[in-house]
Amino acid sequence: AQKKSLQYANRGMTLEEDLNETNLYYRQIGRAVIHKKPTPVQVVQVDYPKRSAAKITEAYFKQPSTTDFNGVYRGKYIDFEAKETKNKTSFPFGNIHAHQAEHMKNVQEHGGLSFLIIRFSQFEETYLYDASHFLQWYFEQSERKSIPKREIEKAGHFIPTTFRPRLDYLSILDQFYLSM
Amino acid sequence: AQKKSLQYANRGMTLEEDLNETNLYYRQIGRAVIHKKPTPVQVVQVDYPKRSAAKITEAYFKQPSTTDFNGVYRGKYIDFEAKETKNKTSFPFGNIHAHQAEHMKNVQEHGGLSFLIIRFSQFEETYLYDASHFLQWYFEQSERKSIPKREIEKAGHFIPTTFRPRLDYLSILDQFYLSM
Ligand SMILES: [Mg+2]
Ligand SMILES: [Mg+2]
Repeated sequence: AQKKSLQYANRGMTLEEDLNETNLYYRQIGRAVIHKKPTPVQVVQVDYPKRSAAKITEAYFKQPSTTDFNGVYRGKYIDFEAKETKNKTSFPFGNIHAHQAEHMKNVQEHGGLSFLIIRFSQFEETYLYDASHFLQWYFEQSERKSIPKREIEKAGHFIPTTFRPRLDYLSILDQFYLSM
Repeated sequence: AQKKSLQYANRGMTLEEDLNETNLYYRQIGRAVIHKKPTPVQVVQVDYPKRSAAKITEAYFKQPSTTDFNGVYRGKYIDFEAKETKNKTSFPFGNIHAHQAEHMKNVQEHGGLSFLIIRFSQFEETYLYDASHFLQWYFEQSERKSIPKREIEKAGHFIPTTFRPRLDYLSILDQFYLSM
């Protein structure tokens, strides 16, 4: 896929922050309704102080059973996982859990658009990478547990970092998924 | 809409529990991929004890900006809010926030299916009620802040409580939304 020079430096924002800003912008201009799902938390203990908000005093992070973001665009169900890596030559997928991969597979089977947005932070390069490619590596290359960067450059789509929206991934979908 | 006698008593399960079981069943049989979104929590303080899981020691519940459930069915984006009321004659919509109502409106505008699943717990009656009906009451009847039960019976669709799935709301969508 084509790679353009960065017009706007990323100025230290995380991929998740860039995507939250992008999605907020998309909602503001009425282009799509896509949100980050809340981080799942197992609440164990809650205090109810008088005249103030309930305070959670014991809770634990739970493993998410789905992906980071979902919503609707041009009538289509959109679902994706966002991952950053500091690795320079490959994307390690070891911290994507089997039930998350299963979820991506199921979404595709039900007619949703499922993909990953992967950032190589050392290069400030961000790619949209289809779940079907990812799943092939995930389920068939269980020993390696990573995908070479050159494969993601080739089969994925480079997302330029721009001013507004920060990461215009919907234009990639327009061009490669929804132009039929 | 037609109302059938309950074949299976609800045995004290909350509407959310019934819907979680229903969605789990739908996923198991490969019918749809629909999940409850995690409750949003603002994490303030986290302890990292040696050799054990990170423990959240101060956090607060946040107001959700979207609805309870979303996912994909037959290629369509599905999005709904579930609400129970003990009220016998009307559904009070006061605790649905304006940004949640806006979200429903936006989902419909982008081609998603948006609705509420409303249970009158005193009668163990559950209805699927389209967001467009709800939004009319919500934005036009700001003084009343409730919808008469007879309106929900008439414009909504009764969902029988059954053994498996507990609340087969996708069959309602098949019949009234997706049969064209
Ligand atoms: Mg992520
Ligand atoms: Mg609810």
